[in-house]
Amino acid sequence: MPTSRLEAFGDGVFAIAATLLVLEIRLPGENVGQGLLALWPSYFAYAVSFLTIGIMWVNHHVILEHVRATDRPFLFLNVFLLLCIAFVPFPTTLLADHLGHEGARDAALAYGLSLAVTAVFFNAVWHYAARGRRLLRTDVSAREVTGITRSYAGGPVMYAGAGLVGLASAVAAAVLFAVIALVYVSASVWGRDETASV
Amino acid sequence: MPTSRLEAFGDGVFAIAATLLVLEIRLPGENVGQGLLALWPSYFAYAVSFLTIGIMWVNHHVILEHVRATDRPFLFLNVFLLLCIAFVPFPTTLLADHLGHEGARDAALAYGLSLAVTAVFFNAVWHYAARGRRLLRTDVSAREVTGITRSYAGGPVMYAGAGLVGLASAVAAAVLFAVIALVYVSASVWGRDETASV
Amino acid sequence: MPTSRLEAFGDGVFAIAATLLVLEIRLPGENVGQGLLALWPSYFAYAVSFLTIGIMWVNHHVILEHVRATDRPFLFLNVFLLLCIAFVPFPTTLLADHLGHEGARDAALAYGLSLAVTAVFFNAVWHYAARGRRLLRTDVSAREVTGITRSYAGGPVMYAGAGLVGLASAVAAAVLFAVIALVYVSASVWGRDETASV
Amino acid sequence: MPTSRLEAFGDGVFAIAATLLVLEIRLPGENVGQGLLALWPSYFAYAVSFLTIGIMWVNHHVILEHVRATDRPFLFLNVFLLLCIAFVPFPTTLLADHLGHEGARDAALAYGLSLAVTAVFFNAVWHYAARGRRLLRTDVSAREVTGITRSYAGGPVMYAGAGLVGLASAVAAAVLFAVIALVYVSASVWGRDETASV
Repeated sequence: MPTSRLEAFGDGVFAIAATLLVLEIRLPGENVGQGLLALWPSYFAYAVSFLTIGIMWVNHHVILEHVRATDRPFLFLNVFLLLCIAFVPFPTTLLADHLGHEGARDAALAYGLSLAVTAVFFNAVWHYAARGRRLLRTDVSAREVTGITRSYAGGPVMYAGAGLVGLASAVAAAVLFAVIALVYVSASVWGRDETASV
Repeated sequence: MPTSRLEAFGDGVFAIAATLLVLEIRLPGENVGQGLLALWPSYFAYAVSFLTIGIMWVNHHVILEHVRATDRPFLFLNVFLLLCIAFVPFPTTLLADHLGHEGARDAALAYGLSLAVTAVFFNAVWHYAARGRRLLRTDVSAREVTGITRSYAGGPVMYAGAGLVGLASAVAAAVLFAVIALVYVSASVWGRDETASV
Repeated sequence: MPTSRLEAFGDGVFAIAATLLVLEIRLPGENVGQGLLALWPSYFAYAVSFLTIGIMWVNHHVILEHVRATDRPFLFLNVFLLLCIAFVPFPTTLLADHLGHEGARDAALAYGLSLAVTAVFFNAVWHYAARGRRLLRTDVSAREVTGITRSYAGGPVMYAGAGLVGLASAVAAAVLFAVIALVYVSASVWGRDETASV
Repeated sequence: MPTSRLEAFGDGVFAIAATLLVLEIRLPGENVGQGLLALWPSYFAYAVSFLTIGIMWVNHHVILEHVRATDRPFLFLNVFLLLCIAFVPFPTTLLADHLGHEGARDAALAYGLSLAVTAVFFNAVWHYAARGRRLLRTDVSAREVTGITRSYAGGPVMYAGAGLVGLASAVAAAVLFAVIALVYVSASVWGRDETASV
């Protein structure tokens, strides 16, 4: 199967998962003005998750740009990755609903672990394609491969770490989730070389 | 990354955000006939938001047609723009639920400000591409660039203005949101030259 | 704008509207077995609406296959058409919830009128493209144009008619909605010539 | 109509149906930590259904890769197949809500029968294309056709069988649904020849 079909299905899942996030934002009660302000955890969780899914969408294309073909194991590893991406609205709603209230620490932990598992599958998809240059295009340099491998390696640790911080303080964990996303975007935008970023 | 991948992801977000708007329309109670008529604010908000997202979809393609390539900052500016587009169902539901009831003025203000922020990111995406012709195709004329720049400049002001009118009268603001969309469509359809419209 | 972008956005709206229909099916209560059987109006409305949207998707491509280019009025007529398509889940839920209960006749009328308005926009999109062969490809024969024009002309009348039948009997109207869809499919599949069907 | 348009619509429905599955997962109550653990049937049903839809997406492309063109009957058989795919979130929610509680056996039966009907339409789509090589590409070997025919034939029986097992034990049926998906993935990944798998 050419990579174009995987891109179409993948783009669909990324776009839908990101757009479904908005359903998480509950309507304010009768006092609309004050209610809208009290919804800040929902706006925050929406923005962080949308940005995180956007980063992962960019990363997914970085992988597919380096791949010359797909095979069945690669395809199903991608299905597992997309399964994780499509799951993101759930921990996002959880975090939005509990941030600033009871249960926030468990919600932050669940959010971090969900993203950590997603990052693990990201690494699995990349390693499967890159090991022994199994599916890589011939014009991809060894330096590029090392750069991408290194830049993805930190993901699972960072998200799991931020989630564990949530056991102490949910707000600190939430800030960390936002910082991770913004650092990724900044590194990608101002990165010295392309492969070391995002 | 070629613009085609951004188009695919963008088309997805625009199409999903527009189609999710229908979930906002609550079912009428037991008295179906009368209940359906009382839902006019929902139909109105649905139509105005769908049309507004449709206009922004057309505008987004106008930008991408003038761009020869993307880079990382452009990509992430687009992610922020799509984050705003995907948010539209929330203020739409808010407006639909409160128009004609308590809280309508706050809802109209929130609706206007949401679209104003979206319009700001539209301008940011365009200015990033157009400044010094950074990402523009070589066959785009200076007159076209000026035309597009001018036609987008008014968006943030118009939406913020209509939102502020909502502080006095939510219905007046709602009518303004509809008028803005219809004027855009008319200007685009009957526009003297292509670049000055939409 | 090439027709390919309109196809991408249109395919998205058709696919999402059709797939969102499933959200309409309420869960049965505690008595699952009996509850699942009592949900027949939901299954029926789901199937009829999905098939109707599927038919309209096929028809939309028939139009776009005959068109060589788009212009702004054509684009915005399509946005209005897609606005109607994306609305279909609402009357579908309405019909599913009320069929066999109070309010069914108003629900059937609303369903029929919604599809009638959609069919009107279908005709508008086609007539705009076909009038004076404004946007048609040069290899489209006059006989094909007449065939498509004739085959679309009946839509608004049939749906409005079936909706009005709903004022007497909601079940009769619901059966008519299904019959219209099945006749379209049959005529398309066993049609003598391609242009006279669907 | 070229197969590319059917692929676009199909990819959309597969991606949306899979991504909507997440809406099925209810939020835990106030006791977040314990509530998240008690949601295991929801995670399980989400993963099994996502994987099953992913497998069907791969299978759908296997069919389209072997097809050189579409005709109207093939198109509408595909619409019926997609109608079944888009329905999957409903039995998934049903199974997730009842697994481990009352009504689980009826839910497992409904889940199995829904997938069995989907598998029947899969066979219908394939047989319509393959009978007398009606729509097949000329370079598809007879051995490939037999391989695909044989590999799809078991689907309806397996799903109906697992559903009937649900009448005795819902948990056993749920395990079977997972096993079927995992066996498909394994056979596809480690299959001796491509056509005999998935």
